[in-house]
Amino acid sequence: MGRMNRRPVKLEDPVYNMDRLYEAVAERGHVCVGLDTAAEYLPPGERAKALSDAQAVLAFNKALIDATLDAAACYKVQIAYYEAMGLEGLRTYAETLRYIRGRGALVIADIKRGDIADTARRYAQAHFEGEFEADFVTLSPYMGMDSIEPWLSYAESSGKGAFVLMRTSNQGMRDFEYLELKNGTENPASPYRLYDAVGDKLSALAESRMGSRGYGAFGAVVGADPKSGAGREEARAIRSRRGNLFFLIPGYGAQGGAAEDAALLLRDGNGGVVNASRSILRAWAAELKAAGKACEGPLCRADTSFAAESARRTAFKMRDAIRKAASTSRSA
Amino acid sequence: MGRMNRRPVKLEDPVYNMDRLYEAVAERGHVCVGLDTAAEYLPPGERAKALSDAQAVLAFNKALIDATLDAAACYKVQIAYYEAMGLEGLRTYAETLRYIRGRGALVIADIKRGDIADTARRYAQAHFEGEFEADFVTLSPYMGMDSIEPWLSYAESSGKGAFVLMRTSNQGMRDFEYLELKNGTENPASPYRLYDAVGDKLSALAESRMGSRGYGAFGAVVGADPKSGAGREEARAIRSRRGNLFFLIPGYGAQGGAAEDAALLLRDGNGGVVNASRSILRAWAAELKAAGKACEGPLCRADTSFAAESARRTAFKMRDAIRKAASTSRSA
Repeated sequence: MGRMNRRPVKLEDPVYNMDRLYEAVAERGHVCVGLDTAAEYLPPGERAKALSDAQAVLAFNKALIDATLDAAACYKVQIAYYEAMGLEGLRTYAETLRYIRGRGALVIADIKRGDIADTARRYAQAHFEGEFEADFVTLSPYMGMDSIEPWLSYAESSGKGAFVLMRTSNQGMRDFEYLELKNGTENPASPYRLYDAVGDKLSALAESRMGSRGYGAFGAVVGADPKSGAGREEARAIRSRRGNLFFLIPGYGAQGGAAEDAALLLRDGNGGVVNASRSILRAWAAELKAAGKACEGPLCRADTSFAAESARRTAFKMRDAIRKAASTSRSA
Repeated sequence: MGRMNRRPVKLEDPVYNMDRLYEAVAERGHVCVGLDTAAEYLPPGERAKALSDAQAVLAFNKALIDATLDAAACYKVQIAYYEAMGLEGLRTYAETLRYIRGRGALVIADIKRGDIADTARRYAQAHFEGEFEADFVTLSPYMGMDSIEPWLSYAESSGKGAFVLMRTSNQGMRDFEYLELKNGTENPASPYRLYDAVGDKLSALAESRMGSRGYGAFGAVVGADPKSGAGREEARAIRSRRGNLFFLIPGYGAQGGAAEDAALLLRDGNGGVVNASRSILRAWAAELKAAGKACEGPLCRADTSFAAESARRTAFKMRDAIRKAASTSRSA
């Protein structure tokens, strides 16, 4: 309140799902629960007694969703884990999406699609309508903006959103995303990288589809980097340069990022969701291990309701750690 | 025979699917039949009488596969068109792949996946094993080589192949693929673009997994560009610089490329397959239109067997046009 650089929350109705996500973050914090649910992540007894891995995963997902509704801003479902289980896995994928949306929560379909315009239109139909309908998708920009634009008509017709890969947190990020370009439009003193070129296109797109909360309908995937000094400077620079982009921030927990790194990519206490997958899905195993109990094999006594409670505790802890780090970085 | 720069065909057994694809091209030419089959592409009567669009597409695909087996080196199935039909569409996708492989032909799953290593492993499991098993996939390189490497273990275990997006033929290609990099490792007089950086990584990868026919297990997607002089020079440069990469060449037919453009990306009469989708799928409509007959609505009398025969004629014409253009460009 009263901070000069803080954008006042307007009272207009949300236009886009990105506005709804902003509101969800304001209410429930920054956690995005990543349902990259491999059957191996389940308590062994629960997996063993299910009719199939796909059914075990669906029951597990539902329990975790129920347990984390008030601890999470949204869910992200990584389709690769479901494709790996074949058609039955994709049925579980569809039912997981439907369950999340039925509970009134927002879901990001992590599909990282990117193809020529005609094909992109089919993909958009697949993931913004019908059995696989999600509120948001993730997209890959390699082929250019004509692979992104067909998705935009759904922003207008039904508020749909997307997060486009910009700067990710994996090691291979340095292979291409990080390469320096010859003709930067920015300050010649600072390097202008491929991800800056992607960011410039996304910033322009955001201006053309601006929501009621100060963020464009489509945002960006920006990773929380390991905690080097240079990585922190870079995160601050990305955040300050991309004021109109809402960020999907992977790399928390199992991927090594911490609350402080993620907080650098937030903005005025909002502006991004931070995804954690395995650390929440496998919270039950971490808690058992910390208590010196068996978490694998027949000696493991964990069940789905314990896993759901563990996930809930872990999500709240993560929420609080990020909130604290965000408020520290704002007052710094 | 006897040309100095021609790599002799060795008599070793094929190691990788890429070797088998080389042999298929040597036997049956360069055509890759693209089964991007939307139900709207079918003769209207056939679509109307089917129980569902997904079933209509499956029957149509099977007929076209049977009709083109000796006219095509391989098939490419664009998953987006099937995802857009939901779970039933994905069943048709799975059955189309199974049918192609059952007929002894090679199939490329056009999925353009690209994600961090853990996720890439799941995707690889999904598309190189089980219900969606294909011989090749297409991949997107944006996130870096650690998103490509998990797929490689299948090259070793079962010969699987991939085509990684390098330089595509859509307009948006100029947004990122075409951007000039600051620190090229090549001749400073010629621009070093993002797609060159991707190509360098892919060339190195090909050397590390070299097949028995002079091409690496993983190749590249390189588009046939509209026929400008600069585009032709560029195509020649790409082909000469990437001698160890087998190319998947889209952009023929409906996308505007011609046999001459595609031929520039071939090498010694092999080295690439040229994909055509709509011009083959909709050959029946083009033939009816050329004959002054109705090809839409209830007056259209086309059926699947006519569509299959049209597809066959069109595939052979395309094969011959590319062969002719390739032999002209070799003797030029």
